[in-house]
Amino acid sequence: MKEKVVGILGGMGPEATIDLFAKIVEETHAKCDEDHLRIIVDNNPKMPSRQDAIMKGTESPVAAMVATAENLKKAGADFIIIGANTAHYFYDEVASQVDIPFLHIIDEAVKEMMRQVPGIKKVGVMATNAAVKIKLYDKCCAKFGIEVIAAKEEVQNKVHDTIFDFKYNGVTEKNVKDAADCAEYFIENGAEALIMGCTEIPIILKGKSFTVPLIDPNDIIGKVAVAYAKNKYEL
Amino acid sequence: MKEKVVGILGGMGPEATIDLFAKIVEETHAKCDEDHLRIIVDNNPKMPSRQDAIMKGTESPVAAMVATAENLKKAGADFIIIGANTAHYFYDEVASQVDIPFLHIIDEAVKEMMRQVPGIKKVGVMATNAAVKIKLYDKCCAKFGIEVIAAKEEVQNKVHDTIFDFKYNGVTEKNVKDAADCAEYFIENGAEALIMGCTEIPIILKGKSFTVPLIDPNDIIGKVAVAYAKNKYEL
Repeated sequence: MKEKVVGILGGMGPEATIDLFAKIVEETHAKCDEDHLRIIVDNNPKMPSRQDAIMKGTESPVAAMVATAENLKKAGADFIIIGANTAHYFYDEVASQVDIPFLHIIDEAVKEMMRQVPGIKKVGVMATNAAVKIKLYDKCCAKFGIEVIAAKEEVQNKVHDTIFDFKYNGVTEKNVKDAADCAEYFIENGAEALIMGCTEIPIILKGKSFTVPLIDPNDIIGKVAVAYAKNKYEL
Repeated sequence: MKEKVVGILGGMGPEATIDLFAKIVEETHAKCDEDHLRIIVDNNPKMPSRQDAIMKGTESPVAAMVATAENLKKAGADFIIIGANTAHYFYDEVASQVDIPFLHIIDEAVKEMMRQVPGIKKVGVMATNAAVKIKLYDKCCAKFGIEVIAAKEEVQNKVHDTIFDFKYNGVTEKNVKDAADCAEYFIENGAEALIMGCTEIPIILKGKSFTVPLIDPNDIIGKVAVAYAKNKYEL
C-alpha cells in the first residue's frame, strides 16, 4: 500500500506549524532522505483570527481554512492535520467540506492519554482562556466519561498569562515556576494526567516532571500522522 | 504591492527544510499571525539522491525537482527557494524550466559576505566532500575575484566527518572541537570569512566565535526571502 502524503493546514501560528512539521520528521526515524515522508505545508497566517471569531463573533475562518485544505489536496496531500489546538473548534465544519481524511489532534491526544492512564476519570488541561471557554477538550473527554477539571479563575488566568508571557519573553524563571505551580494545582485537584493543550506549554515545562503523565498533543499527532501515512494506523 | 507567497522546495533533507522555514518565520518579526508570510512547503524527500547523482552519476534529480517546483507554483507560490546547499548544483537546470523566480542561496550568501567584509579576497567554505568536489561556492566567488581556500585533504575530511558525526550523534565535545579546529585552519590560511556551507555547521559551532565573520547561508536566504516577499528587495 502506498505511503500517504501528509498535508499540514498551518499558520495558526507558524511556530506551532514548524513544531508539528519537526515532530513528524523526528517521529519518522529515517536513515536517509528517501525514508522520510512527503509533507506538504500550507502555512497560511492570513486567515481570520480564530480567537476573535470565538471570543468576539468576528468573521469566521472556516471559508479560508476550507480553501487552504483544498489547496493542500490539490498539491497532493492525502490527508490533513490542522496544526493548532484552538482551531479545532472549527474542525467539523472544515472537515465536512473537504473530501480527504483529517486527523483530529484533540481526539488523538485523548485516546493516547487513555492508553497511558487506563480508566482515567479526571484530567487537567493547560490552555489559553479561549480554549478553555470553548471547552476544547471537554466534548471528547465527556464521550469517555472523563472530567476536565475546571480550574478556579485565578489559576486559569495564570496558565493563560504564562503562555503569553512566554510568547513575548521566552522561557523565564517566573513563567516556568508559574506553569509548574498550575500543573501542581491540577494534580492536587485530582488530575490523573495533564494535557498541554497549547504549543507553548511543552516548551515552558521542558525537563520538568510531575507525579502524573504530561500529554503533548503535537507530539501525539506527529506519531499518529507517521503511522497513518505508513498505513499502520486506521481512522 | 502585494506580498509574495514563499515556496520552499524542500526535503533535501527535511531538517534543513525545517531550519529554513523557521528562519523565515523568525526573520518576519511578526507581532501577530496575520503579519506572517504565507509559506508553502513541498517537503519531497522522494527525489533521486543529489549526492549520488553528483558523485556516482546515478539518476538526476532535475525532473523531480522541476515537478516539485511546478507543484509549489500551482499551490500559489510566487517564488521558490531550493532549501539545500548541495542541490544548488542543479539550480540552473531547474530554475530555467519553471516560470517563477528562484532565490539562489549561494549567490545571496556570497553577496552578504561581501557586504560584511568589503574587498574580501579569500574565504573558507565548510561543507561536505561532495559540495567541495563540485566547487559549490567557487563559481560565484570567482565572479567577484574571491578565492575559495582549498583545504588539505585531512582537514576537508575532518569537516565532512564532523557533519556526519553530528547527524548520528548530535553535538559532542569532539565534533565541536574538530569543527572549531578546521575553522581555525582556514583562518590561519588567510580566510577573511567562513561560509558554513552545510546546515549542520551552524548548529555545531553555535556560540563559538572566531576572528572573522561566520556566514550562515540559511540565515541569509531567510532574510532575503522575507525582504523579497515584502517587495523590499529586487532580484
